[in-house]
Amino acid sequence: MTPILQLLLELAILIAATKAAGYVATQLKQPSVLGQLLVGLALGPSLIGLFEWPVLDSALSHEVILDLAEIGVIFLMFVAGLEVDIQDMLKTGRVAILAGTLGVVTPIVMGAGSALLFGNALSPSIFIGLILSATSVSISAQTLLELNVLRSKEGLALLGAAVADDVLVILALSIFLAIGAGSAGAGNAAGDIAIVIAKMALYFAGAVGIGVFILPRLTDLVHRLRISEGVVALAIVVMLLYALSAEVVGQLAAITGAFLAGVMFGRTRHREEIEQGMHTLSYAFFVPLFLVSIGLEADVRSLAGSGVVFALVIVLVAIVSKVIGCGLGARLGGMSWPQAGRVGLGMISRGEVGLIVATVGLRRGLIDETVFVTIVIMVLATTLVTPFLLRWAFARRVSEPREITYVAESARTSDG
Amino acid sequence: MTPILQLLLELAILIAATKAAGYVATQLKQPSVLGQLLVGLALGPSLIGLFEWPVLDSALSHEVILDLAEIGVIFLMFVAGLEVDIQDMLKTGRVAILAGTLGVVTPIVMGAGSALLFGNALSPSIFIGLILSATSVSISAQTLLELNVLRSKEGLALLGAAVADDVLVILALSIFLAIGAGSAGAGNAAGDIAIVIAKMALYFAGAVGIGVFILPRLTDLVHRLRISEGVVALAIVVMLLYALSAEVVGQLAAITGAFLAGVMFGRTRHREEIEQGMHTLSYAFFVPLFLVSIGLEADVRSLAGSGVVFALVIVLVAIVSKVIGCGLGARLGGMSWPQAGRVGLGMISRGEVGLIVATVGLRRGLIDETVFVTIVIMVLATTLVTPFLLRWAFARRVSEPREITYVAESARTSDG
Repeated sequence: MTPILQLLLELAILIAATKAAGYVATQLKQPSVLGQLLVGLALGPSLIGLFEWPVLDSALSHEVILDLAEIGVIFLMFVAGLEVDIQDMLKTGRVAILAGTLGVVTPIVMGAGSALLFGNALSPSIFIGLILSATSVSISAQTLLELNVLRSKEGLALLGAAVADDVLVILALSIFLAIGAGSAGAGNAAGDIAIVIAKMALYFAGAVGIGVFILPRLTDLVHRLRISEGVVALAIVVMLLYALSAEVVGQLAAITGAFLAGVMFGRTRHREEIEQGMHTLSYAFFVPLFLVSIGLEADVRSLAGSGVVFALVIVLVAIVSKVIGCGLGARLGGMSWPQAGRVGLGMISRGEVGLIVATVGLRRGLIDETVFVTIVIMVLATTLVTPFLLRWAFARRVSEPREITYVAESARTSDG
Repeated sequence: MTPILQLLLELAILIAATKAAGYVATQLKQPSVLGQLLVGLALGPSLIGLFEWPVLDSALSHEVILDLAEIGVIFLMFVAGLEVDIQDMLKTGRVAILAGTLGVVTPIVMGAGSALLFGNALSPSIFIGLILSATSVSISAQTLLELNVLRSKEGLALLGAAVADDVLVILALSIFLAIGAGSAGAGNAAGDIAIVIAKMALYFAGAVGIGVFILPRLTDLVHRLRISEGVVALAIVVMLLYALSAEVVGQLAAITGAFLAGVMFGRTRHREEIEQGMHTLSYAFFVPLFLVSIGLEADVRSLAGSGVVFALVIVLVAIVSKVIGCGLGARLGGMSWPQAGRVGLGMISRGEVGLIVATVGLRRGLIDETVFVTIVIMVLATTLVTPFLLRWAFARRVSEPREITYVAESARTSDG
C-alpha cells in the first residue's frame, strides 16, 4: 500500500474505533471520553500496537495522524473557548470564582508537592500540578442532567466554577511557560522575565483588541459576502493565526491562542453558525484523532514498580485536592458544607484540557513518557469515579429537608 | 518556528488566500474556482514560491498539506457523488444520456489524437483525452441561473448530461486503470486483463451491494444512537474505506470509491445531514487546500516553447470536442440545432474532476509536470470562456420566436 492509502486506512480505523468506543462507554453509563481513551490505549503500544503492524508501518502517515491530532487539539480548545460566557460566569458570582480559583490553586500546590516528594525537579513538579488543576466538567454536567439537578444551586455553581477553572488554567499555563522561557536564558533573569511578561501582555492586548473591535465586524462582513462556508473558514483562519501568534508573539502555548479565539468568536453575532460548523469539523474528524492519539503515544507498560505507586498517589492527589479546593471555595462563597462538598465532587473529573496540557508538556520535554502515562491514568480514574460519587452525594441530598420538593419537581418535569 | 507552527501558518495562509480569491473572482462575475486556481498558481513556484520561503521551508509540513489536499479530493468526490441523482438523470432521458456519452467519447478521441500527434505514447495520450472528458457544469449552472434559464429545456438537459458525464468519466477512468494494470504485467495479457476486470466487477458488486442493503440501515442505526456527529463520522469512515478498497480490491482509483460512497449515501434518509456536515468539512477546510495545492504543484515556467503550442492545442481541442460531442448528442436526442449548440457550449467548462483525474495521473506517472501544467491552463481557459459563450448564445436565443415569451416570463418572475 502507498503511504496515502495507509493514511486513509488508519484514519478510517481510528475514527470508527473511537466513535464506537465512545458509544459503548455511554451505553455502560460511562462518559464517552473514557471509552475513547481506552480504545486508544488498546490500539497503541500498550496492547495491540496498531502502528507497528507491517501493513501500516509507515512513519509518514503516523506523522500526519499526529499532526492532525495536534490540529484537533486546537479545534477542541477553540470550541471550549466558544462555550465560555464570561458574563454568565460573573453572574453565578462569588461561589463560582472562589471555587474555581481555590480549585486551581490547591491541585497545583498539592500536585507539585507530591511530585517533588517523588524526586522530580521543581519545574516539572509545578507543571504536573498545573495539569492536575484542569477540570473537565462535561462529565459532571451529564450526570447532573441525568439526575435532573443540573439547574440546582450546586449545578449552576459547578458550571460557573468550570469556566473560571478553564480560564485560570490557561492563564496559569501561560505564566508558567512565560517564566520558564524567561528563566531559561542565562544572565539577567529578572530582566528576561520582564521581557517575557511584556510579550505576553502585548499578545493578550492585541488578541483581545482585535477580538473586540475587528472580529465582530469582519465576521458580519464575511457573512454578508456569502462565500461558501465563509464564516467557518474565517473562524478556522483566525483560530490558526491566534494559535500561531500565541507562541510566536506571546511565548504562550498555541492552545491558549485557540481558546482565546473561541472566546472572541463566541461574542460575535454568528456564534451559532460557527459553533455548528466547528463542532462538525471537530467531533466528526479531528477530535477523535486527538483522543485516540493519546493512547497511541502512551505505553502503559512504561510504568515500572515505583511508577505505579507514583500513579496511585497522583490519582489520589487529583481527587482530594479538587474536593478540598473547590469545596472550600464554595463554602467561602456562602454555600452549606454539604452543598460545597457536592460542588467539590463535581469538579473531580479531568478530561481533554488536562490531556492537552500534558501533551504540550510532553512535546516540550517538561514531562517524560512515564509522567504522561500517569496523567492518562489519572484522567481515566477521575473520569470513572466522578459519576459514582456524584450520584451518591445527590442521593444523600434528598434527605436534606429543604431540597426534597425540588428533586420531586424536576423528576415530574422530565416525565411530562 | 517548529514544523507544527509552520503547518498552522501555511494552513492559515492557504485557506485565507483561496477563500478570498474565490470571492474576488465571483465579484468580477467569474467562477470562484478560477480565482482559487489562480491564487494557487501565484503562491506556487510559478510566481511567489511560498513553500521555498525560509520561514516555511519545512518538507514535513508541505507533505502534510499535500496529504490534506489528497483527503480534500476524496471529500470533493464524495460530495459530487452525493449530488448525483441517477433517477433525475434518467428522467431528462435520451438527450442527457446521448449528450453525456458523446460528450465523453469525443474529447477522449480528439484529445488522445492530438496528444499522439505531439509525440506522446499511446497510454498517456488516452489518459490526456480522459482528462479532457470531465465536464464541470457548476459554472454553467451558475451562469444559466443568472440568466434565469436554468429551468429551460437546455438547462435541464445540461444538468442531466453533466451527471451522465460524471458517471461515465469515473467509469472510463476505472476501465483505463484496470486495463493499464492488467497489461503492465508480462505474459498472458488477455488473462491478466480478465483478472483485473473481474476484480473491478467484484469491487463494484460489493460496494453497490453494501451501499444498497447495509448503508441505509447502518445510517439509520447510527442516527438513532445519538453519537456526537455520528452520522457524519460514519460517512467519513465509509468514504475512506470505499476509497481505499477501490484501489486495493478493485485496482481502481480511490476517487472512484469516494464518488460511489457519495452516490450511496445520497440514497439514504439522512442525506441532508450528511450533505451539510460534509459540505462544511470540505469547503471550510479540505477543498481550498486541494484547489490551492494544484497551483503549488504546477510550475507554469515548465512550459517551454513547444509546450505553449501544445497547451494552446489542448485548450482548443477541449473546447471544440465538447461542443461537437455534446451538441451532436443533444441533436440526436431530438433538440433543434440552436438548442443542441447551447447544450454543447454549456458543457465546455472543466473543473475539479478534470484536475482530480490529472492529479491521479501525475501521482501514478501517467502524465508529467508539463502535461499537468497544460491541464491546469486548460481548466482555467475553459472556465473563463464558458460564461461568455453562454451569455452570447442565450442572448441570440431571444430572437428565436418561440422562446421570447419564456424569457420574458422568467425575467418577470425574478423581479417579483
